[in-house]
Amino acid sequence: MGVHLQPAALRNDTLLRALAREPTGYTPIWLMRQAGRYLPEYNATRAKAGSFLRLAKSPALATEVALQPLERYPLDAAILFSDILTVPDAMGLGLYFSEGEGPRFERPLRDEAAIMRLAAPDPGAELRYVLDAVRETRRALAGRVPLIGFSGSPYTLACYMIEGSGSDDWQRVKEMRYARPDLLHRILEVNARAVADYLNAQIEAGAQVAMLFDTWGGSLSAADYEEFSLAYMRPVLAALRPVPSIVFTKGGGIWLESIAASGCSAVGLDWTVDPREARSRIGNKVALQGNLDPAVLAAPDASVREQARRVLDAFGAAPGHIFNLGHGITPNARPEAVAALVDEVRAHSTKLRASRA
Amino acid sequence: MGVHLQPAALRNDTLLRALAREPTGYTPIWLMRQAGRYLPEYNATRAKAGSFLRLAKSPALATEVALQPLERYPLDAAILFSDILTVPDAMGLGLYFSEGEGPRFERPLRDEAAIMRLAAPDPGAELRYVLDAVRETRRALAGRVPLIGFSGSPYTLACYMIEGSGSDDWQRVKEMRYARPDLLHRILEVNARAVADYLNAQIEAGAQVAMLFDTWGGSLSAADYEEFSLAYMRPVLAALRPVPSIVFTKGGGIWLESIAASGCSAVGLDWTVDPREARSRIGNKVALQGNLDPAVLAAPDASVREQARRVLDAFGAAPGHIFNLGHGITPNARPEAVAALVDEVRAHSTKLRASRA
Repeated sequence: MGVHLQPAALRNDTLLRALAREPTGYTPIWLMRQAGRYLPEYNATRAKAGSFLRLAKSPALATEVALQPLERYPLDAAILFSDILTVPDAMGLGLYFSEGEGPRFERPLRDEAAIMRLAAPDPGAELRYVLDAVRETRRALAGRVPLIGFSGSPYTLACYMIEGSGSDDWQRVKEMRYARPDLLHRILEVNARAVADYLNAQIEAGAQVAMLFDTWGGSLSAADYEEFSLAYMRPVLAALRPVPSIVFTKGGGIWLESIAASGCSAVGLDWTVDPREARSRIGNKVALQGNLDPAVLAAPDASVREQARRVLDAFGAAPGHIFNLGHGITPNARPEAVAALVDEVRAHSTKLRASRA
Repeated sequence: MGVHLQPAALRNDTLLRALAREPTGYTPIWLMRQAGRYLPEYNATRAKAGSFLRLAKSPALATEVALQPLERYPLDAAILFSDILTVPDAMGLGLYFSEGEGPRFERPLRDEAAIMRLAAPDPGAELRYVLDAVRETRRALAGRVPLIGFSGSPYTLACYMIEGSGSDDWQRVKEMRYARPDLLHRILEVNARAVADYLNAQIEAGAQVAMLFDTWGGSLSAADYEEFSLAYMRPVLAALRPVPSIVFTKGGGIWLESIAASGCSAVGLDWTVDPREARSRIGNKVALQGNLDPAVLAAPDASVREQARRVLDAFGAAPGHIFNLGHGITPNARPEAVAALVDEVRAHSTKLRASRA
């Protein structure tokens, strides 16, 4: 492959056009966590790697699994296979996964000294394996569809860095926020710089879209969402090299107006948001991505198709919708249900758009 | 006490006036789960009872713990000490609690036959212990403050009845919703009838306000929230004897307009909702209850007071605000922080309202 230094021309740019709110013949679709445990071939590669983290840290295997869903389904984007928490891992916190428990850190931020020592990593050094995976996935895609790069948002990273693991109520994070907000701000400043550098390095390596997963911003009060999450995503978005960007705050439906004004190209919606209301609240300033309940993919095909049409009808035929789930695909999704979904989205959205024209 | 058949006149009706959106000299306050594990005296009584469920099923002990927070703090309401899941327990599902794991059912709804057999219990028989607790708590209050009765909402009950326990994603519930929505509707119809009968029996026994805890309505899509949760709370509210009612859907902030139009007197807000926006969205049709982040009560007093003022300022001095947390108080709340909160709410809201007059 060494001779092909110029990346292949993009043959399917439907996602990029939808992100730019340009007309497309159908609604593009990709699925958060589309390379995941619902796919037997993913589980086989993961078993070969030995663990999720070894899979994510091997550019060759990460490329392999990133392409698996595209072999099965005519999806309109690939997403880098990685984790939202690579940045704090590169900061030295020691990311690990214990079976069935989600991500954890060996060295969470437990004192002021550790917080003061925190520094943004050099993506070219400590996160080299991610950039290699971006380059290798981009090469393997050979222009089939665009590649989405991503990171956890500054606040979502801080949640895990402080708590040391996932949590229902983020007690340690909230304790810091209410007792020592200055320390939380300090962590967020470092995170914002680190995430901007990291996403720019991904873009330089070949990512054509950048996405911020603000998985836990929705656990904040309205005022704190602005102060501790959005205020640190804005500078990240402003610092990005010129590619389209997507911001997804789970539970952020009530704050849509301010998310849409953050500088992103598209807002990801979870399934609690009514797409008609979302569009009427934010107008045509940004594209919208979402928002099928992931639980639908465990249902019979007829129900999957019905719910897909319901979502498409609610978004309407205007440009600027990217079909997705309202959160990551779950391990109990049926691969056949995903096939039915992708098929129905293509067929129904083509009809919708034709009837509008 | 046998001779005092007429309940004592209410000496503090601030809550009832706020629920009716009448002017009050200060903002009334009570706290969801105010009789809870953060109080040493509660833990002592619970230890005496042997378990949470034996405590809830003993009218004498339930009365004792319901009054404990009022002995410590000048709160403006008492709430019945009970559980949101008493109704399905009375339907024969076998409620139990395993340490640190939340509520579970011994016999969750696992097949169509069980669902078809489901029937609304007779509150005077199977839920007699709750009505006795209402009567005894009301007598013990002797007119100090009003007594709030409550139940889980039809949908929230269905969640636990189908899943058998709490869940992050309610897979079994969603499976039924997408594969057999008719069965879910059948459960919800029975639940709505049962909850209406149950709340009316509580009101007849002495409850002066009725509250619906729709703890899991927020896990639904926007369209499904209307179809599976709100559509079954509306008939409950319409069937209630004439006392003020409060509906609290955790995560329901995006659907405020429809919740406010459900027939309730007040809408409970979780802490993700901006009170100014809530008021501008729903106007003056209903009172609003909330919405301090419960995590604040683990913070230092100065921070508690600051956050209390922030919430009060956001609701403003207009009538129709009941101060509360945005969800139940947590075991790590400091009892002294609760004292600071109640004190600050009284002082600051008195000042706010005086400056407005």
